[in-house]
Order: sequence, then C-alpha cells, then structure tokens
Amino acid sequence: MAQRSGKPTRNKRPRERSGQDILFGINPIMEAIKAGRRKVFRIIHKEGLQGAAAASLLSLARTKGIVVSQAPLEQVAAMASAEGHQGIVASVGPPVYSSFDKLLDQLARMDKPMVALLDGVMDPRNLGAIIRSAEAFGVAAVIYPERRAATYTAVAAKASAGAGEHMRLCPVVNIAEALRLLSRDDFECIALEGEGGERMENPPTGAVALVLGGEGTGVRPLVAKRCGRSVRIPMRGQVGSLNVSAAAAIAFHWIASGRG
Amino acid sequence: MAQRSGKPTRNKRPRERSGQDILFGINPIMEAIKAGRRKVFRIIHKEGLQGAAAASLLSLARTKGIVVSQAPLEQVAAMASAEGHQGIVASVGPPVYSSFDKLLDQLARMDKPMVALLDGVMDPRNLGAIIRSAEAFGVAAVIYPERRAATYTAVAAKASAGAGEHMRLCPVVNIAEALRLLSRDDFECIALEGEGGERMENPPTGAVALVLGGEGTGVRPLVAKRCGRSVRIPMRGQVGSLNVSAAAAIAFHWIASGRG
Repeated sequence: MAQRSGKPTRNKRPRERSGQDILFGINPIMEAIKAGRRKVFRIIHKEGLQGAAAASLLSLARTKGIVVSQAPLEQVAAMASAEGHQGIVASVGPPVYSSFDKLLDQLARMDKPMVALLDGVMDPRNLGAIIRSAEAFGVAAVIYPERRAATYTAVAAKASAGAGEHMRLCPVVNIAEALRLLSRDDFECIALEGEGGERMENPPTGAVALVLGGEGTGVRPLVAKRCGRSVRIPMRGQVGSLNVSAAAAIAFHWIASGRG
Repeated sequence: MAQRSGKPTRNKRPRERSGQDILFGINPIMEAIKAGRRKVFRIIHKEGLQGAAAASLLSLARTKGIVVSQAPLEQVAAMASAEGHQGIVASVGPPVYSSFDKLLDQLARMDKPMVALLDGVMDPRNLGAIIRSAEAFGVAAVIYPERRAATYTAVAAKASAGAGEHMRLCPVVNIAEALRLLSRDDFECIALEGEGGERMENPPTGAVALVLGGEGTGVRPLVAKRCGRSVRIPMRGQVGSLNVSAAAAIAFHWIASGRG
C-alpha cells in the first residue's frame, strides 16, 4: 500500500444515533451479542415466544447477564415499528461505525482487501441485504454516504440477518473523495454499471474498491470518473434490471472467486 | 428433449385468486400493461402524484383506454395494504399462471432453457426478488409449490419490479415430481445448497433446472435426491449466510455465463 496523503474524508456519526437504539428480530440481536461491539441493554419479547432460535438467543442473553422481559405483542410491535420483528426487540447502544482514517490504516495491514462503496443506496433493506452478502464474501468494509442515503437502522440490521453487527460500516461525507484516497492506497476502483464497461469476466487480483450505484440512479458520473474500471453484468430479458443487492451479491462473488 | 411420460404434476390456481386483484407501485402496473397478459381494469393514484415515471405510466394507461382516477393518499394506501405503493394502485385480473404440462411443451421447443424451482421460499419479497433476477438472466420459468410457500401477490410483484408480469410462473403440487419430469426431458437438475456439493465453477451447458431451497430450511432431502448435481457458493465471514434471492442471482448469473 502506498503512503496516503491529502485531507482525510470527514466522518461524523449520523445525528439520529444517540444514547439508545432498537434492534428487532432474532438474528440481529443474536449477532449483536456475539459481536460484542455495542452494548445490549435489555431484551423484550412477546408473551409465549416459541421456537429453538428464540430459546437459544434468550439463553445466550441470560448467560451474558442481559435483562430479559416479556410484554404484550402490541408493545413489542410498537417498539420495533417495522415488519419482521419476530416478537422480539432489544434496546441497544448505537452502532459502532468505523472512521475512514482508521479504516485506511486497518486496510493497509490486510492482504488484498475488498471494500464496497455505495453511491446513494436509499432503501435500508437494500443496504442490509448488501451488508449481508458483503459479510458472506469477506468484504472488509461497507462505505456509504452519511447523508441522502440509507443508514444502518434496525430495518437494515434485520435485512442483514445480523451481519451488520460484524461488518465495518463507514459513513463518509463524500464517496468520490473516499475513492480518491483508496486509489492512492493502490486499491483498484471498479464501478459496477448497468451499461457500458467490460463484461464481468476476469476478477481483480489485488486490493479492490467496488462501487455500487443507487436504486434507479446508478453510479454518478463524478464517482464513476474516479474508477479505473467499469464492469457490467450481462443481462437479457424484457425488464432486464437487477436489484442493487442482487447485483452486489454477484459482484462480491465474482471478486471472491478470484482470491481462491 | 426426450419424450416425456408419467402422470403430470397437477396444477391449480391458488384459491385466493378470484376475479380481481390489486397491483401497486409504478413498475408492476407499467409492466402489467406492457406484457398484456392480464387485464388492467383501473388505475387509482393519489392526488398530486408527481414524477416522470408516474407521468409516463399514466400516459401509457390513457392510450390503452384504462380508466385512471384520483383518490386521497389514505385510500390508495388502504387498497395497497403494504409498503412501497408509491401512491398508485391498479385493479387487475388475476396473474396468468403456466400449467406444468404446457410449460414442458414450451420448454421442449427452446434451446437450452433454464428453469428455477423454489423448494419452499416463504417470503413474497424473496419470491419477487428471485423472479426479477430470473427475468434478467433469461430464466424461462419459475416453478414453486402452490401451497406452504410464497405466491405471486402484489408484494411479490412489487419486489419483482414488474418482471413477474413477463415471467412464466408455474405453481405445482409437488416440486420433487416436477423435477422427475424435467429429468426425463433431459434437464440437468442442480440443487443450490449451503453446504456440501461442488464449488460453483463449471456452468452447465444444456437445459438446466436449478433448485433453490427455502429461507432457513434449504433444499429438502427428498428434493435434493432428484438432483444429479449439488452446487455451493463458497463463503467466508462469521455470519456467512446469503439471502435466498442473493444466492439465486449468483446462480442465475453463473448459468447464464455458460451460454455466452
């Protein structure tokens, strides 16, 4: 990795992250406990919660000394305030974000790291789904804009099946600037685009920064300009469009396949 | 293709499909009109609906003589009864399903067709996401159980971004039996499994039936037994699991990559 220089990308915690947060669903709460990165203050589940996965979660929580209590289903649902809560919520500390500076230092010590940059993914379910696939393919960090984009909410955590609790999540002010600094550190920056570019064939062999565009908008020109390579997924069909999280899964798999 | 024989898999329309149905969101309604497979009776949108995509949809609807009316947002939301309606709903005919018999006849006339079989995908959003990716990669049909599995609802249609309006959708009584008949017709039946099997490397070159398991449960043993080949997607990571729709996208891309 080359020595980096230049002004680092500023990075603040999104403002809505204050003292306490909510997670819902079995996997996110389980993985938050396992990852141990943020505090799990308390778990509240509906009366009569059943199933092996839930039992296993409650048992783990008790061994960790986490307060577990019951409440009527309506109350649990109101705390989750989204679908898919599975009758269980937790009051937790805020997500632990990586600062971009620190991330660059960590990446410099890794062998051929892969990072993903999201250029304006707006749907927290897509963000979560991308994080889940990223974690499954050994992506080192998911970098996304701290404004005008989906952030790592309880909905995103659920869509990630808890993978977000293990992943380095790095909100930045400016994706183009983050790419500039990654390029300086010898990352090959690859934009995944719907049209143009080369077919997805030969995977990159070194450090990679993969850029995924937002739903409908794709990678913005000023961001694509920072990428030395543009790759497309060949498609057919009459609608012929992929959800950004499907495209991300294909691209992560492609890059991972080149690392054996 | 070999001449098929044996008792065909019975195939009925799911019972909840009666005279009229609802679609919501811009893409599903747009694609239903474009595909022309089912009747679009009427479009109702919220007062003050804006945006180029919506304008384009309403313009197309008017040229087709479809009644378009306005209603308060609350009424549109109530008709959709799910998130993501974008302020627009349509009253439509029931989805057009393929019978398995007729599908086999159609497949026999295609060059190296690929079909997907879902062994118990329960979430309509996953079903829709799989249909969307299937359409993008030229999958000829999506076959799924008519009971105890997600069906093609308005939620699934939305998640498919309207691709379901173009795709052959084939609900069957029994996935294992459908596989038996596809095997007789010289389809190579491949189970996508989380563990075991070969790494996803050499794509199949002939007619392919790809089997995807349900969320959490995977491909059931009696279904896997009907498959001559089992393939896994190599993963790493601590959670290391893929959503079924992400796995489907990777597998469709893999198979499509072998057809040039």
